[in-house]
Formats: sequence, structure tokens, C-alpha cells
Amino acid sequence: MQQQTKILVMNGPNLNMLGTREPGIYGHLTLADIEAKCRSAAKASNLAIDFMQANAEGTLIDTIHDACNKFDWIIINAAGLTHTSVALRDALALFPGDVIEVHISNTHAREEFRHKSLITAISKGVVAGFGVSSYTMAISAVADITNAGA
Amino acid sequence: MQQQTKILVMNGPNLNMLGTREPGIYGHLTLADIEAKCRSAAKASNLAIDFMQANAEGTLIDTIHDACNKFDWIIINAAGLTHTSVALRDALALFPGDVIEVHISNTHAREEFRHKSLITAISKGVVAGFGVSSYTMAISAVADITNAGA
Amino acid sequence: MQQQTKILVMNGPNLNMLGTREPGIYGHLTLADIEAKCRSAAKASNLAIDFMQANAEGTLIDTIHDACNKFDWIIINAAGLTHTSVALRDALALFPGDVIEVHISNTHAREEFRHKSLITAISKGVVAGFGVSSYTMAISAVADITNAGA
Amino acid sequence: MQQQTKILVMNGPNLNMLGTREPGIYGHLTLADIEAKCRSAAKASNLAIDFMQANAEGTLIDTIHDACNKFDWIIINAAGLTHTSVALRDALALFPGDVIEVHISNTHAREEFRHKSLITAISKGVVAGFGVSSYTMAISAVADITNAGA
Amino acid sequence: MQQQTKILVMNGPNLNMLGTREPGIYGHLTLADIEAKCRSAAKASNLAIDFMQANAEGTLIDTIHDACNKFDWIIINAAGLTHTSVALRDALALFPGDVIEVHISNTHAREEFRHKSLITAISKGVVAGFGVSSYTMAISAVADITNAGA
Amino acid sequence: MQQQTKILVMNGPNLNMLGTREPGIYGHLTLADIEAKCRSAAKASNLAIDFMQANAEGTLIDTIHDACNKFDWIIINAAGLTHTSVALRDALALFPGDVIEVHISNTHAREEFRHKSLITAISKGVVAGFGVSSYTMAISAVADITNAGA
Amino acid sequence: MQQQTKILVMNGPNLNMLGTREPGIYGHLTLADIEAKCRSAAKASNLAIDFMQANAEGTLIDTIHDACNKFDWIIINAAGLTHTSVALRDALALFPGDVIEVHISNTHAREEFRHKSLITAISKGVVAGFGVSSYTMAISAVADITNAGA
Amino acid sequence: MQQQTKILVMNGPNLNMLGTREPGIYGHLTLADIEAKCRSAAKASNLAIDFMQANAEGTLIDTIHDACNKFDWIIINAAGLTHTSVALRDALALFPGDVIEVHISNTHAREEFRHKSLITAISKGVVAGFGVSSYTMAISAVADITNAGA
Amino acid sequence: MQQQTKILVMNGPNLNMLGTREPGIYGHLTLADIEAKCRSAAKASNLAIDFMQANAEGTLIDTIHDACNKFDWIIINAAGLTHTSVALRDALALFPGDVIEVHISNTHAREEFRHKSLITAISKGVVAGFGVSSYTMAISAVADITNAGA
Amino acid sequence: MQQQTKILVMNGPNLNMLGTREPGIYGHLTLADIEAKCRSAAKASNLAIDFMQANAEGTLIDTIHDACNKFDWIIINAAGLTHTSVALRDALALFPGDVIEVHISNTHAREEFRHKSLITAISKGVVAGFGVSSYTMAISAVADITNAGA
Amino acid sequence: MQQQTKILVMNGPNLNMLGTREPGIYGHLTLADIEAKCRSAAKASNLAIDFMQANAEGTLIDTIHDACNKFDWIIINAAGLTHTSVALRDALALFPGDVIEVHISNTHAREEFRHKSLITAISKGVVAGFGVSSYTMAISAVADITNAGA
Amino acid sequence: MQQQTKILVMNGPNLNMLGTREPGIYGHLTLADIEAKCRSAAKASNLAIDFMQANAEGTLIDTIHDACNKFDWIIINAAGLTHTSVALRDALALFPGDVIEVHISNTHAREEFRHKSLITAISKGVVAGFGVSSYTMAISAVADITNAGA
Repeated sequence: MQQQTKILVMNGPNLNMLGTREPGIYGHLTLADIEAKCRSAAKASNLAIDFMQANAEGTLIDTIHDACNKFDWIIINAAGLTHTSVALRDALALFPGDVIEVHISNTHAREEFRHKSLITAISKGVVAGFGVSSYTMAISAVADITNAGA
Repeated sequence: MQQQTKILVMNGPNLNMLGTREPGIYGHLTLADIEAKCRSAAKASNLAIDFMQANAEGTLIDTIHDACNKFDWIIINAAGLTHTSVALRDALALFPGDVIEVHISNTHAREEFRHKSLITAISKGVVAGFGVSSYTMAISAVADITNAGA
Repeated sequence: MQQQTKILVMNGPNLNMLGTREPGIYGHLTLADIEAKCRSAAKASNLAIDFMQANAEGTLIDTIHDACNKFDWIIINAAGLTHTSVALRDALALFPGDVIEVHISNTHAREEFRHKSLITAISKGVVAGFGVSSYTMAISAVADITNAGA
Repeated sequence: MQQQTKILVMNGPNLNMLGTREPGIYGHLTLADIEAKCRSAAKASNLAIDFMQANAEGTLIDTIHDACNKFDWIIINAAGLTHTSVALRDALALFPGDVIEVHISNTHAREEFRHKSLITAISKGVVAGFGVSSYTMAISAVADITNAGA
Repeated sequence: MQQQTKILVMNGPNLNMLGTREPGIYGHLTLADIEAKCRSAAKASNLAIDFMQANAEGTLIDTIHDACNKFDWIIINAAGLTHTSVALRDALALFPGDVIEVHISNTHAREEFRHKSLITAISKGVVAGFGVSSYTMAISAVADITNAGA
Repeated sequence: MQQQTKILVMNGPNLNMLGTREPGIYGHLTLADIEAKCRSAAKASNLAIDFMQANAEGTLIDTIHDACNKFDWIIINAAGLTHTSVALRDALALFPGDVIEVHISNTHAREEFRHKSLITAISKGVVAGFGVSSYTMAISAVADITNAGA
Repeated sequence: MQQQTKILVMNGPNLNMLGTREPGIYGHLTLADIEAKCRSAAKASNLAIDFMQANAEGTLIDTIHDACNKFDWIIINAAGLTHTSVALRDALALFPGDVIEVHISNTHAREEFRHKSLITAISKGVVAGFGVSSYTMAISAVADITNAGA
Repeated sequence: MQQQTKILVMNGPNLNMLGTREPGIYGHLTLADIEAKCRSAAKASNLAIDFMQANAEGTLIDTIHDACNKFDWIIINAAGLTHTSVALRDALALFPGDVIEVHISNTHAREEFRHKSLITAISKGVVAGFGVSSYTMAISAVADITNAGA
Repeated sequence: MQQQTKILVMNGPNLNMLGTREPGIYGHLTLADIEAKCRSAAKASNLAIDFMQANAEGTLIDTIHDACNKFDWIIINAAGLTHTSVALRDALALFPGDVIEVHISNTHAREEFRHKSLITAISKGVVAGFGVSSYTMAISAVADITNAGA
Repeated sequence: MQQQTKILVMNGPNLNMLGTREPGIYGHLTLADIEAKCRSAAKASNLAIDFMQANAEGTLIDTIHDACNKFDWIIINAAGLTHTSVALRDALALFPGDVIEVHISNTHAREEFRHKSLITAISKGVVAGFGVSSYTMAISAVADITNAGA
Repeated sequence: MQQQTKILVMNGPNLNMLGTREPGIYGHLTLADIEAKCRSAAKASNLAIDFMQANAEGTLIDTIHDACNKFDWIIINAAGLTHTSVALRDALALFPGDVIEVHISNTHAREEFRHKSLITAISKGVVAGFGVSSYTMAISAVADITNAGA
Repeated sequence: MQQQTKILVMNGPNLNMLGTREPGIYGHLTLADIEAKCRSAAKASNLAIDFMQANAEGTLIDTIHDACNKFDWIIINAAGLTHTSVALRDALALFPGDVIEVHISNTHAREEFRHKSLITAISKGVVAGFGVSSYTMAISAVADITNAGA
């Protein structure tokens, strides 16, 4: 019997405040709503999933290290760290599985300093601008690619 | 009875050559394969779809003008024009529906001049790096968003 | 009897859509309205005029080549190609008459990438920001300069 | 009875020397000639006009402040201050009427440091490169726009 | 019997006007003269040759696609598109044979924006500045390299 | 009875070491001295105040989240994070009250990399260069603005 | 008996128009209101004060020279000259007392060209964004520092 | 009896994963191996040594503060924080002893964003590219310099 | 009898304060001392000389205009305006005689923003760094060149 | 009897090591092989030729000075000095004959710092990327141009 | 019997003047002192060593060429050529052994133009800032690496 | 009896060709003429002088080292090395006397790459643009300064 593909969905700083922050940009969904939709999408595709959020760069890095032997994919919305953290990039680069970068808003349509991502170059792909669907689209991509390779 | 949402999938220069070009980057799928998968994904989500490719910027712009009254969404892989064509951007900006930018490869992991997209700022979102799945993920996003708004 | 001075008014990509596109920036006039006003202004100044629009860079270049023996002036609103097309600039540079660059909106008050024009340096002058009047002001300039030299 | 539209034509540093300075670039007209042509053009369009020149930035700013309650339009050739004076820009920005930027020569075809204008972004439009006609074209634009709005 | 090596000589926008345009830079030769000299040089080296010119980027790309199965080498003078067209670069990159970039004038001794070529990096080599001889030198290079490898 | 306005004074990395570090730049005051002066200034203006310091970006972000429902103003000396932390900026941007940026030294008179602040653009104002007075001046500003609005 | 500390408050171009100009940015206070509040704040702290405004850079420089032997502090809102005038900076640098830079609005949250100040590096400190309170906060700072040194 | 010189060896984010990460760049040694070699080198030179690693910037800063009274030297491999952390730089700058920057790989031969170090300017020296020997070379340097000064 | 060559020595903002300002950079000489030395050097070389200083850009420009018919050479120390004033440059460019740029200090050894001179390109030559001798060296140069041409 | 055209072929630093250095880039030919092929090509075209190599910039400059009266053309592969030596450029600029720049590899397809050539702007033309053929193509160009002008 | 590893220590321009030049930066040691310490360190590690200095780039390049068959390692302090010489970099790149870059001072803590090294990218590692110990640390590194590989 | 002040006049690459090279820029004087005028000027001011020229950077550096104990001043026209040689700058920086930078032409009015001088920052002053007089003016400056200090 084939083992379930395991995905870790990671969320960076301030995403715990979703639903309270600039709804014009991020919508009214909370992070709990996003987790629920991710779990439901994963279940529908028969994928195992875990979900976490942290405001501290160090905690995110610890989590990635810990994920190395436990997960096949990381889907990450690194929020503000996307643009500044070489340490986070290095942590993701040593993760043996694949990484997908997601963003709720279209970061390239916002301030100049949000146009550069340190994470994109070590990711398999990017999904940005679709609200919570950015996450579920990434989960579908894992399902597609896993099935294609099965 | 509600009318079907209509999507136009557009492909820019050189994508007609897919399957022959740098398979290390783009894979072995041909554009016909992509079209077939797009049509099948649209059908599954009960979306109407059309699909086109052109090497000429002018033809792409004519097509967008013509699409204004006929389609609700444009999903576009503008290929090399992504990085250079203000005229294409202007055409997409006047399209009354929403635009999704897709790329087969992760353009930000390639040459420097492929990091800047003139199209992103006027798009709803971006999907890049998932091969043909970039297209079907975009189609799923249309289905999600359309249903959410229904 | 002196021969009439002949002007070709050229319009670049997306200008055929005028009146439908971002009226906050471009107003409600259509390209047909602009053509009518140009013809009327030319007639009032006893100037011969022709008027064209194309979305394709190649067609614009062909038209300029063809105009070399037929027109004395080119008034051009190159739209999005203004900022990107060295080929169009080269075509205008080999036109033996004079070139006037016009823009409906004040391009320098818009996005950064619209601040650089490849055409200005090979033009006699620029008129920008006056809506359809940008065109008729350019036609008046031709009349003034032609009379001054008569 | 409708009141006449009132235009103030302002000229920045060194323009009092016109006719003596680099005639290859600026022609042989003096500032007095330009004033005469402006007055004649204004009269023909039934516009009230005043005309001034100063070499000092402070005097130009004082004049703009004073013009706030007396004029409907400012047509300004700010000469060398075009490229360097934030203070002049700020003065023009608080003028309640509209501003038109004019230049005798095509500044974008000259030295690199003349390509950037601090004034363009707060102007309605720009006319550059037509010699004295740059001024009279701007006056015509005022007439056109005023009549259109009448 | 060994098959003849086949070369396609491609010419970009405005080169059809050669002989009329800025003779100080490009000389008095027409494109027909260049074609004649290329055919004669190819014949002398027992190489098959074809020769084309187009003003439209899309047509050049179509031609390159079509050349993939018909020619062993492309010698291209992309003119103004040299500096701006990622799409043309991508088309040349997928051509299975080798590419040689040629220029009539020494582009690096002209305007700053002509110093960057998007084509050089995917070309085998560059020949620039020798007038029509740039083309015949490229043809000789094909002959040399083909013989060396024979 | 009107409720007291509540201010949270936040201090970023290394400020716990004040009094030991480069006294030429920062003076001999310790953070405890600054806290005492802030509490005394707040009391004098009848403002409630809290005061904290952390070396970890994550802790600062957690504190801001927690402050959303408890404080009306944040006065922050983000120290080295001022110049690098998009995540901290995002946390401050979602704080529903106003933010004041303070610095002990005049950061613009120091190293180049201290000239750019990511926090200024989302702050109401900035006070820099007055030593501990930078803090008490910010507290006075809160008192002034609150009274003006009362 | 100790002599009163003497402050000169200086205001640069266009600040005489306060109250008429972009109230969204600068509020409805006039410069006379600001002067009144400054005088009142100075009196409360037992500081001597003078207050001036000029649109001309030369007048501001003359005033600074004259202030060298008459004042202990200069508080300056250099307005548009902040970003462009090396001459004003040099004048302030030779003033033997201390300089405080003030701004009514948060200049770093406005146009890019307002982010650079030539004056900051030679000032003791900066206060920006607090409306008229920026001035009175600076006066408080003088009182604090003077008392601390008394 | 002279007191032993005390060195703290600090390691930044992801270095706990050494031996698992990109062995082509970093080799197969684990951090425990490095610690062992450092302890052995220190012992040979009669130097006291401590060794730590943390993924969190805040923890590293806390550790530096704590080291101020306990150690004479810090040898630090700040990993990804080298290029981004002003806060870490500030912490090291207030350490009263000397700092040596070490890197396992030659960071200047890697990605562009690894070429800039915020730490170098406040370090006594740098050792990069020698694998674990970078650390032991730094320890030798401490021994040399301490003996020279003894 | 040959007419005496006439030199105008011009001094820009803040130079009236020489002798009081940063003597480490400018020395203890006053502007009156410099004038005396210039007059004495001119007399020794049988040159007519005049000497002026102004803090206002406009006054300097007026003076240059007035000098057009009265002087053969301008020797100018434009001080802070050297780096910022296009208007002053334009005034000097229309002066029919030759211009020599002088500086008391070596401006290229000072702040970055003092490295660029807008005046150099339209000057015959530059003398910088020799204190008051910069002026007398320039006067000698006029004498040399005038005699050579006599 | 017409005199033979004389060419000097010059080679810059490290080219004496050809055949040993990075054969993937430069091939296995030695400089002696290149000299032989050049001599043979020159003989075939009835051109006189000389050939030299030096590692020292000063020697190359001396050689160019000496060549002024002895040669009609210089063909130069300046190797690493191409990108850095203004002195070599100046030497070539004063050579009264024409200069051709050659490179064995396609320098624009290599490191960024090899993209800028200080020599191109003062050369008649450039040949790069064809291995030893770059040299013989340049010799052919001399033959073509000489015959055309004969 | 295993052959001794052979190291060439190379020193670039001006290092022959050590001990006379800016002792605040470089200390009082002469190059002869450094040579003595290097020889002694090499002897202690049973390594063969040679030591040279030259002011001429060409001589350094000649020496590297000559070293190709005679030495296993080059330790080089290229001094001012570090930042400017592509030719020296190319020479070191073709050396078949490994290269170590050393600097006496911490170049990254000095002028901006000393921050970029053309040599680092082709070196195994860098040691900078430790005075003469930079050299002996590099020699230890050779000993370590050679033994590790033995 | 006071000893004569000793000046070494140094000339960099290509200056030996003066009189043959671009007379429009450099005039018709030869280097021998310049030497004669320098010797005569020095004699008139009772200064000892020596004069040299070299095309090789290394020779210039050797000469500067040798001059350390023999000359009080160096006057140097470093020609093309002015803009590129850190090594030459370093040599001049260790010269214990003062350095004067001279240029025959006004380098800031020529190509962009001639605007930056690496030598200015370590020179006492600069004289540029006065032809051979640049040298004699520098010699006068030495005389002035020496006498002033006598």
C-alpha cells in the first residue's frame, strides 16, 4: 500500500491576524478558515496535511528542520520574511522535498520592496493573488504532480 | 439559468514549439497536450473555454480587444513578451474581466531579465512553475472564485 | 502653385479601443472622433492629412517606410511602443520629414516605465496631456512652422 | 457676461537672454518677440494674458503665490529650474488653476540631466520643441479646453 | 555524398530601407546588394543559403520556427529588436543549429541603449562594424567551422 | 468620564544594553532611566503607559498583536530592525492606533544603511536625534494630538 | 542672572501659503497660527524666540549668517529646499549653535524625491509628521537640552 | 598567573543541519565535528572556549550580550544573517572584545546576495572558504595575537 | 594700444563667511583677503579685475548676464551651487568669454554629493584644493593664455 | 607598384598560455597555432603581417606607439585588459590606422564584468566567439575593405 | 617518499613599502619580516615555500604562468590589483593548483572601492584583517588541507 | 641656507605621444615642450625639478617609491590610469610629501568614464583643462605654498 504524501503548510509573521488586517487587500477570512479549507482540500485529494503559523523566523526555521524527515512538501506563505530572510531561504533549500511559495495578495502589485522574493528561486513554483485559493491551488498542484509521478 | 463563465487561454511567442524546446526547462508536453488538459479541466468545472497561440504581439492585442465582449477571464502565458511589452499590458488592462498570468517554468529562477513582469501588476494573480498544471490551477481558481461569488 | 503640406497621423496599439478604456485617464472620445477633429483642423489650415492606427509594430514600421515619399510630417501617438520599441524609433529616424510625438494623457504623471520615451530624441517636439487637443495642437504647429518657412 | 479666462505666462532663469544664447538650439527670437506673439495669440482667442520673467527662484515663487487669486492658468517655461527645483514644483502644485509646461527646445534630446522634469507630474500637459510656437500652442490649448468646458 | 550546409540569413526591421537611411552610418549599399554578396560568398564556399527580411517580430519568429528543420545555421541582423526582444531571443534559443549575430555598424559605438544585446548570449559569435563584410565574414566562419568539423 | 489614552513604548534589539554601548552616540542613560522619564512624562500628561524591550523580532510582533486591543498609540524605537524588517512593518501597519517612530541618535547622520527606514511610511511621525528626549517629545505629541481631538 | 536661550524658527518656500495648500497633507493652520503657538511654547519654557519665512534661498542663507551671533538654536522647516539645496546646508553647517529640522508632514511617506534630506546630516535631530506640534516639540527639546546642561 | 583567554564560537541559522545540507558546498562534517575540532585546537593553544548555535536572531543577540563580561573574543559564522541583520551587527559592535567572522564556504563565489556582509566592517578579520579549518584558523589567529600582545 | 583683458571673479553662497567657517577645511583667510590677493595678482599681470559675492542664485545669474559685454573671463567659485544649479550653468554657458571653475578645498575629497559639478563641463578648466592660491593660479592661467594668443 | 597593407596582430595577457587554459572555453589551439593560421591567411590575401603577445599593459602600449608609423591596421585581442584599461584604449585611439577587436570566446556569454569593452568604441568593428577564426575573419575583413578602397 | 607540497607566496604593488606606509592600517612589520614568518611557518609544517613581490601586473602574471608547473598552491596578496585586474584574475584561474587570497587589513572596513575583489571568486578561500597572521593562517590552511587529503 | 624644494613631475601612459594625438583635445605641444616649460617655471621660482614619463603602471609605482626620500612634491598627470589604478593611488598615498593632480584637457567635459579619478581624493589639489599651463600652474602653487610656509 502506497504511503500518503505529506504536506506541511507554513505561515509566516502576522498571518495569525488575518481577518483583522487590511481586508481590502487580504479579505475577511481568518487563518482558521484557511486551515479548514486546506485540510478539506487535502482530504479530497487523499493527502496528509499539517498546518502551522509563527511570527518568529527562528521558529519557522526550526519547524523546517524538523519537517525534513516527516513531510514531502512544504507550502509556505512567508509573508514579510519573503523579501528579507536569507536564513529562511537557506532552511528551505536544505529541505529534501519540494517547496511551493504562496501569497494571498498579488505581491507584485504592491510596494516595490515586495517585488523581490528570496524564496522563489529555491521553490518549485509560485501561486499568488487568489486569496485562500492560493493555498488550495498549491495543494491541487501537489496532488497533480504526485499522481503524475505515481 | 445562469450563463457559463467563459475563459480565453492565450499563449505568446514560441509556445507553439513546446515539446521541442529545452525539455529540461519546459518538459515534453506539446501545446496541443496543454490545450487538451485545459479543455478537460474547464469541462469538469462547467466553464466555457477557448484557446489560442500567436507569435505576433499585434495578433495577441487584436485577440484581447476582440475578447472584451466575449470572455469573462483571460489566462495568459505571454512568454517572452511578459518582460518587455507595455502594449500587451495596456491591452490586458482595458479588458473588462480579470486576468491570470501563468508560466510553465519558474521564471524567477531563470535569467535576471525574466524576473520583471509587466503583466503582474494588472493581473489578479500569478501561477508559475508547475508545468501544464500552471494552466489547470488557473482554471480551478476561476471555478473557485466564480462559485464563491455565485 | 505651392503644393499642400501632407501629414500622416499614426496611432499605435490599443488606441482603436479609445472611449472604452480607462475614461478617467483618456476621456470618452473615440479614435473616430479624434480623426474627425484632426481632419477638420487640417482642412482649416489647408493641410493634407491621412490617419491610421495599428496594433502591430511591424505594420507601423511598414507604414512609415511607405510614408517616406508621400508625407512631409508624421504625427505619432505610439502608445505603449513609445517606451519599448527601438525598431519604431529607427523607422521614424529614417523618415526624411519631421516627426511630432503626441500623447493624450500626461505620460510623465503615470507609471515610472512610461517616463522614458525612445521616440522623443528623434522628434522635433512633443505634445502631451491635452486629450484630443494634443493632436490638433500638433497640426497647428505644422501649420505655423510651414508658414514661417514659406 | 462671462469673464475672460486669464493666463499668466512665466519664464525662468536666462530666458531674458534669448536671441543671444546658442541660436542653434533656441533660434534668434528674443523674449520680447515671444511676448508679442503670446499677446497676439491670446487676443485672437479672447483670453487675458500677462507675461513675466525672472532669474530668481524666489521671485518666481512669489509670483505664483500672487497669481493664485488672479489667474486661471499658468504657462511656464521654468528653464534650468525645471530639473532641480522642488520649491517651484510645490508652488505650482498649490496654484488652484491648471499649469502647462512649455520648452522652446526638445529637452529630451539634450543632456541627460535635462530629461527629468520635476514640474511635469503636477502639470496638465507639456509642449516642447516648437520654438516660440510651444507658447502659442499652449495658449491655443487653453482656448480649446476653456471653450469645451463653456 | 555529404549534404550542403544550409544557412538562413535573416534581417530585422528597417533593413529593407538600407541605402536610403543615414548613409554616414550604414553606407550606400542596399539590402539587395547585401543579398547578392551573401549568395556569391556562399556559392564560393559551397554553402546553400537563403535570405529574408521582415519588419515584424512575429514574422521573424515564425521564420525561425520554420527554419528548425531546414537550416543548419542562422545569421541574423536583428536591427532594433537586438536590444529589446526576449521573444526573438527565445525563438533563436530553440533553433537546433548555431546562430551568428551580425551588425553593419559598430553598435557599441552608438547610443547607450544599443550596447546591450539580448541575442549575444545565445549566439555562437558576433561580427559587427564591417558593413556588408559583417555578413560575408559570418558566412566564411560557417565555412571554416563546417570544414574543421568535416 | 473619559478614558485615559494608553501608550505602549516599544524598544528593539540591543537597547537593553544602553549605557554600555558607544556612549559617544547614545549617551550614558540606561533603558531603565528612559523608562522612568517616559513614565514621569506620561503621568504629567495624564496618559497611561507601558514599556517593553525585546531582542527578538518575533517577540516584538507578538507584542504588537497583543497591543491591538489594549493601546491607542505605539511609540517604537525599532533599533536595527528599523532598516530591515518588513515583518515588523507589517505588524505595525495592522495596529489600529497610531505609531510614532523614535530614535535616540540621528540615524541619517550615521552609516548609509541606517538612512532607509521601513517603518517611517506607516508611522504618523518621526522623532530622532534628541537622546532620551526623543521619547518624551513623542509622548508630548500624543498629549497634544489627543487634547486637540478631545 | 543667566541669559535666555534664543531660538530662531525659520520657514522655507511656500510655507507662507499654509492653510490654503493641500489641507489633506498640511491641515488648516496658517503660518501665523504656527508662529503664535511657537511664541507661546517658547514663553512657557522661558526661551527667547524669533520667527521668519522666505521663499528665496538667498534670503534664508543671509538670515542664517546674520543669526550666527544672535541665536543659540535654529529650528528650520526648509520645505522644498530640504531635498535640493547644498548652499542652505552649508549655511546651516557654519552656524555655531545647533540646528533642528522640522516638517509638518511625514516626508518619508510622500514622493520618493522627498525622502532624501540634505539637512539631516548636519542637524542635531529631526521632528516630522506632527503638524504644528513638530515645531513645539522641537522647542520643548531645546528647553530639555538647555535645562539638562544648565 | 595570567588568566586564560576565553573565546565564544557562535553559529547562526541552519548550521545545526551541517552534514545533511548541500555537501558539495559544505562537506560532510557535522556541527558536532566542528565543535570537537575547535575544542581540540583551543586546548592545544591553551585557550578557553565555548560553542553554541541558534536559529533565532534574538537568541544570538541575547548570547552576545551575555558574553560581554565572560569572553574576550567572539568567532562567529552568522550564516544567512550575515547578509541581512543590522541588529546582529549592532550586538557585535557593542561587544567589548574582538570579533572574527568565519564562513565554511567562499561566500563571494556564491549568489550575489551573499557578497555583502554587514558584519565584516565591525570585525577584526574574516576567514572564509576553508571548511572546518576556517574555524581552527580563527582560533590560531586568537592564539597568535594574544601571544604577540602578552 | 591693446585693451586690458578683463576678469570677473565671482563667489557663490556662504563664501562671505570665509574665515569663520570650518577653518580645518577652508583656512583662516577672509573673502576680503582673497579679493586683495586677486587684485594684486591681476595687477602684476596687467589684467583688469572685478570681484563679487552673492548668496542668491538669481543675483549670480543677473551678474553673469551683465558681464557678457563687460568681461572677457569669469573665474567662479560657485560653492554649494556647483553641484545643484542647472540655471547657473546655463547662465555661464551663454557667457561669450571663457569660464574657469575654482574651489578652495579639494571637493572630490569631501562628501559624495560634492563630487559632481554641473559647471565643469562648460568651463575651460578647473583649479581646486589650493586655498586662496586656487584663485591666483586661475588668474595666472588667464595671463598665460592671453599672452600666448597675443 | 602599390605597397602591401600591413597588419599587426596583438595579443594581451595570458594568451601565451592558450591550449592549457580552460579548453572548454578556448579550445586546444596554442598561440603558435593561431599565429600560423594568421600568417597563412594574410599570405593568401597578400597582406603583410606581424604578430606579438605581452602580459604587460605597458609593453602593449609601447608596441602600439611603435606601430604608428609601421602598420596600417591593428587586430587586437586585449584579453582581460579589454574590460579595464583606459590606457590601452587611449593608445589605440591615437593609432592613425584602423583597429579591429577580436575575442576567441563570446565574451558577452560569460561573466557580467566581461560584457563591457573599453576598446569597442574606438574600433572599426568586433569579431567574437569563433575561436581562431575570429582572427582570420578579421584578416579577411582587412582584405575586403582594402580591396574595396583600392 | 611523498613530495613536499610547494607554496608560492605572491605580493602585489606597494607591499615592498610595508613598514613605512600608514602604520595605523598595516602595522610596523616589513615585507622581510613577513617573509621570515612565512618561511618559519612553512618549515614547521614541512611545506616548501617561495616568496616574491612585484609592483607590475605583467610581472605578477608572468610569475603565475611560470608557477604552473612548479607550485601546488599560490597564496596571494594582490593589494590594489585585487579590485581592478581582470588579467590577474585570469592568470590565477588558469593556475592548476589552488589559490588563497590574503589581506593584511580588513579591506571591507575601508573605502567602498576596496570591497569588491575580482580574485575571491576564483580562490579557494580568503583570510583578511589579521596582519602578518593572515599569511601564516593561510599556510596553516594548506597544511591542514594537505594532511586531510594525504 | 634653506634647501631647495624638490618636485618630481610624472607623466603616465601615452603622454610621450603628445603632439601627434588628437590635437583638437591636447594641442600641438610635445612632452619635450612641456618639460622645457616646467623646468623654466621651476627655475624662475627657485625650485628643483625632475621630469619623467612611463607607459607602465609598475614603472610609475617604482618611481614613486624611489621618490619618497628624494622629492617634496609630486605633480602627476596619470592619464588613463587616473580612472582605473588603485595601485597607483596606493603608491601616491604612501608618498610622504604632497601630490598635485594635473590634466591637459578638462577630463570632466569628456567621456563619462573619465569623470571619476581615483587620485583626487589623496591629492592636495587638481588643475585641469589649461593645456601645458596646467603643469606650470601646479608648479606656481608649490612655490606659493612653500613660500607661505617658509
